[in-house]
Amino acid sequence: MEKLHKIGFSKLAPLEDTIQKLLMKIKVNPLEEIEITKALNRVLAEDIISEIDIPPFDRSAMDGYAIKAEDSFGASLKNPKKTKLIGTIEIGESSNLKINKDEVVRISTGAPIPEGSDAVIKIEDTEIEENIVTIYNALAPGKNVSKRGEDIKKNVLALNAGIELKAEHIALLTSLGFNKVKVISKPKISVFSSGDELIEPGTPLQSGKIYNSNKPMISALVNLYGGIVIRAESIKDNKESIKIKLIESVEDSHMIIFTGGTSVGTKDYLPEIINEIGTIITHGVAMRPGSPVLIGFLNKSLIFCLPGSPGAAYISFLKISGPAIRKMLGCSVLDPRIEIVARIDKDVPVTGLGILHFLRVKLEKRENEFIAIPVKLKGSGVISSLTASDGIIEIPPNQEGLKKGEQVIVRLFPK
Amino acid sequence: MEKLHKIGFSKLAPLEDTIQKLLMKIKVNPLEEIEITKALNRVLAEDIISEIDIPPFDRSAMDGYAIKAEDSFGASLKNPKKTKLIGTIEIGESSNLKINKDEVVRISTGAPIPEGSDAVIKIEDTEIEENIVTIYNALAPGKNVSKRGEDIKKNVLALNAGIELKAEHIALLTSLGFNKVKVISKPKISVFSSGDELIEPGTPLQSGKIYNSNKPMISALVNLYGGIVIRAESIKDNKESIKIKLIESVEDSHMIIFTGGTSVGTKDYLPEIINEIGTIITHGVAMRPGSPVLIGFLNKSLIFCLPGSPGAAYISFLKISGPAIRKMLGCSVLDPRIEIVARIDKDVPVTGLGILHFLRVKLEKRENEFIAIPVKLKGSGVISSLTASDGIIEIPPNQEGLKKGEQVIVRLFPK
Repeated sequence: MEKLHKIGFSKLAPLEDTIQKLLMKIKVNPLEEIEITKALNRVLAEDIISEIDIPPFDRSAMDGYAIKAEDSFGASLKNPKKTKLIGTIEIGESSNLKINKDEVVRISTGAPIPEGSDAVIKIEDTEIEENIVTIYNALAPGKNVSKRGEDIKKNVLALNAGIELKAEHIALLTSLGFNKVKVISKPKISVFSSGDELIEPGTPLQSGKIYNSNKPMISALVNLYGGIVIRAESIKDNKESIKIKLIESVEDSHMIIFTGGTSVGTKDYLPEIINEIGTIITHGVAMRPGSPVLIGFLNKSLIFCLPGSPGAAYISFLKISGPAIRKMLGCSVLDPRIEIVARIDKDVPVTGLGILHFLRVKLEKRENEFIAIPVKLKGSGVISSLTASDGIIEIPPNQEGLKKGEQVIVRLFPK
Repeated sequence: MEKLHKIGFSKLAPLEDTIQKLLMKIKVNPLEEIEITKALNRVLAEDIISEIDIPPFDRSAMDGYAIKAEDSFGASLKNPKKTKLIGTIEIGESSNLKINKDEVVRISTGAPIPEGSDAVIKIEDTEIEENIVTIYNALAPGKNVSKRGEDIKKNVLALNAGIELKAEHIALLTSLGFNKVKVISKPKISVFSSGDELIEPGTPLQSGKIYNSNKPMISALVNLYGGIVIRAESIKDNKESIKIKLIESVEDSHMIIFTGGTSVGTKDYLPEIINEIGTIITHGVAMRPGSPVLIGFLNKSLIFCLPGSPGAAYISFLKISGPAIRKMLGCSVLDPRIEIVARIDKDVPVTGLGILHFLRVKLEKRENEFIAIPVKLKGSGVISSLTASDGIIEIPPNQEGLKKGEQVIVRLFPK
């Protein structure tokens, strides 16, 4: 029979081994310091130890009167106690006021309570006439007071390196006084798609051609996973021009992602080229879709050749290229997708034992339970199967499919 | 007793009513057309009807030979059939080749199959000698062929207005030929925090002061929810300067978000000002934390005054301001948070019936089930309660807390 497999992948590598082998070879990018206002979604480069207490002082949690709690003991509507108002502390004020027995200080929410006080009585539980404040309620020590360090104590680990900074982390960092923060610099990534059948969207469709959707799709995924796309180009299936692009991009790219040109057709030059001038780590992975994936290095650039069909390219990005980007970013969680526990709503037989299968599913919530409904597929290229789904179930290589009602883990598409 | 409530909120409005009332008053922003390569996370402004079939032609799903399926009927290893090779179609080629009985055409994956053929036989199931191709397998019609329109048919609704464009939608749009797309323009939002206790991070901490964390936190949330922060400033608790800022910002802001200055302390000028020069829709919502929220309008700008304590500001943003931004964006889903079904791991009593309570929880996966562990709180201001949690459980106003083991819905923090 015809021998086309010049550099083929007769043996498919297990996906988990492939990922482990790959991740071990990836180093974390250098850090950079940026303004905290630009830090949303960036990856924290260092553990944050608090240098101050939050709050930095005992402060009032109410508008009322700061008081020595014991002076209120026994007070009630029927048995009011009289205290003397000796001053006011507004929020933001630093005060030298000190209260003694049966003295109170008018205080705003958030203001530091004065020396000698250990509780705040609400306005509503008092009456004032001249400078005499009548107390109608008894308070336990600490009542309506936020203690110094109650939120975060000085010298504790407040945030761990490797987290992605969200609004709440930015709040915490700024409350600790940070206006800058050290984050891992973004991997620079070149995105190429090859295939003589591809034409650019926005131009008229020609006979035998299809619009190039992989380049914008992979670029969007790179952005979503925290990389920067430094170039995104289409290249012809021509060995010399692919090689030139590759050599050029190695200069400035932490990662180069190709789609197409990785199978074993007559025009699939990429495996040949990488074998000639770089190193192939893996070619062919035991997963469906996505089996023709090629992983290699050229100098220090990591190279991924993903399948040309969009569904396969998407899934192999999520499983392989995406975690590689996040390893470069120093993320503590390499796969950012959210897992949902669900029940599968029909039998799903699989053909091809030894192959990890990705099943695209739509989720429906029924009575506090999620039901996973397989999305009907015709071929891995089907883009509508992605837009019609919410996520993916993985059927392990040694499992003969899924039984209706079985509990499954659905990994949601990344947002 | 002392009367401080100049414009107070003696009666708290139910949250759901508040949200419904608010959303009804919000119009969707105008649309704009942008490059598809910039469309990640933008909101689609119009339904997309496919103008072409995808794939646009019957194409081969294999490297092999295009054939009339019936010519293969009965073929097997023991009973091979001979056919005549009449040409080759490479991917991307438009071909006028037409096959007749017992003729085949060499074809690449993705190439259009020639007229007269209805199946593709894999290379591995054939042998070639000169121009005679021997067939060792029988094929059903349609085998290894992706039919025209199999992924998306012409003239069908391919995407709905109101979705946020992710990588897979960008792939679909470009595969339909779009290089530009109409999206809803981003709401322009001014962010202010007021409070004489606030100082800026990056400066030394002064006695009685705390670092301003609300301004960067709310700005990050605005970005995350799809708005643009056009200004983010701290203002002193001074009626005149707050009023001037407000009047200035109304000129160019779809929305103005304040934090702080909304309760009933002596220096809380915001409700007064908005009552004077604008319209208050709601002041005081029956939720904890977050009850002092004020919602109003000044001319066409929507105004939110959120509580000054970061935890309360964060939660009231998620429940009220965030969905308002998404309504302006025309999102079909106004609350973007993902829901997880979990079991609560301890009793959670609540005080204050008639109030919606937000319980911050951490999630743990145990044997394919999520367990929600309440995060210990001391006051709504506690930022560490947000960074230590994964999401929020809502305990409805009429419910006396949660019982250990009860099933709950956890809404994850927005990512």
